[in-house]
Amino acid sequence: MTLTFYDCKTAPSPRRARIILAEKNAPHDVVEIDLRTAEQMGEAFRAINPNATVPALKLEDGTVLTDNAGIAAWLEATYPEPPLMGVSPTDKADIATWQAKVEMEFGMGVASALRNSNPAMKDRALPGPHDYPQIPELAVRGFAQVDNFLDKFDAHLADHEFVAAGQLSVADVTAYVFVDFAKVVKKRPLETHANVAKWHARLKQRPAFQL
Amino acid sequence: MTLTFYDCKTAPSPRRARIILAEKNAPHDVVEIDLRTAEQMGEAFRAINPNATVPALKLEDGTVLTDNAGIAAWLEATYPEPPLMGVSPTDKADIATWQAKVEMEFGMGVASALRNSNPAMKDRALPGPHDYPQIPELAVRGFAQVDNFLDKFDAHLADHEFVAAGQLSVADVTAYVFVDFAKVVKKRPLETHANVAKWHARLKQRPAFQL
Repeated sequence: MTLTFYDCKTAPSPRRARIILAEKNAPHDVVEIDLRTAEQMGEAFRAINPNATVPALKLEDGTVLTDNAGIAAWLEATYPEPPLMGVSPTDKADIATWQAKVEMEFGMGVASALRNSNPAMKDRALPGPHDYPQIPELAVRGFAQVDNFLDKFDAHLADHEFVAAGQLSVADVTAYVFVDFAKVVKKRPLETHANVAKWHARLKQRPAFQL
Repeated sequence: MTLTFYDCKTAPSPRRARIILAEKNAPHDVVEIDLRTAEQMGEAFRAINPNATVPALKLEDGTVLTDNAGIAAWLEATYPEPPLMGVSPTDKADIATWQAKVEMEFGMGVASALRNSNPAMKDRALPGPHDYPQIPELAVRGFAQVDNFLDKFDAHLADHEFVAAGQLSVADVTAYVFVDFAKVVKKRPLETHANVAKWHARLKQRPAFQL
């Protein structure tokens, strides 16, 4: 028996868990769920995760973790090395703060821009089991959020090797995944923000970040 | 020297940190910031927290934590008893998962409904230093998110004493604060969702939850 990871190569959320699994060297099987054919909405996958989202991680005892926050917390507690959520109280706080900032200001901005503008995502303006109509003005706001975040992030990375706590952390993973994914809304931080580009190039040397 | 907590009695976000400080019995001074007069946007407070948001927690060494996620992580690591973020890996995961769910589906819904409909929040559709215009359709979506979450949450609480991991946790704190705050958008879960009401009544007996 081992971990089973429900993944989707084309989506940013499961990539976050994929990189953490690799950095932790946690042995696992992979089941690919095809979001482009809405496989996550089908009966088979919803029997595993009623919330109809990836990533999901099935543990050896059958428990299914259905959220990046939960998966990261479980992996950190089960495979403490290398620590990706901090060891000292202030490092833990710095990482949790940046993780929240990256999710709320950057990830949310990209998601708002994409889900409210792409014709293929009509009525899928939020992930999960409920349909929500697109709101074109929310796409506009998403682009503004992304610009505001990237300016702040680039200034931060001018004198920080890693996003938080002077060490590789889940905040680097999250920011890296969204920097790469931002191209779906035609944002290219690597061309517009030099410090983001340097930080990205450093991380890209790590095998886990090539997944 | 001690902790300094920047609070605002009328806002939900700082209340989350206030309850955790009380449950942890962490000694601290309080500085009240008046959001109704936009004191958080003034020069004095932005010298403490450039992000112009409460809560903020100044540590003994001068470090300022500016986000609920960071404050909770620091308090949990510094005052481990009582544990509010879980001890075993699966308890940590369950609490982190529910915390994210409550924030994304419930807190975000209430915030979207309020900030995009209240004339007093014109151009303040998101917290922080940047102005964003209101989007009336986003208020409508916020109400739908709240309804969908409360139905799911009520079903969950039918056979759970606490939100996650069978113990009091940060997820109870977050959900409780947003249940109380939902009245600003005229949502009254205590009248419409019986299991939410029972869970709320149990928690309300704790002194920290009366703050």
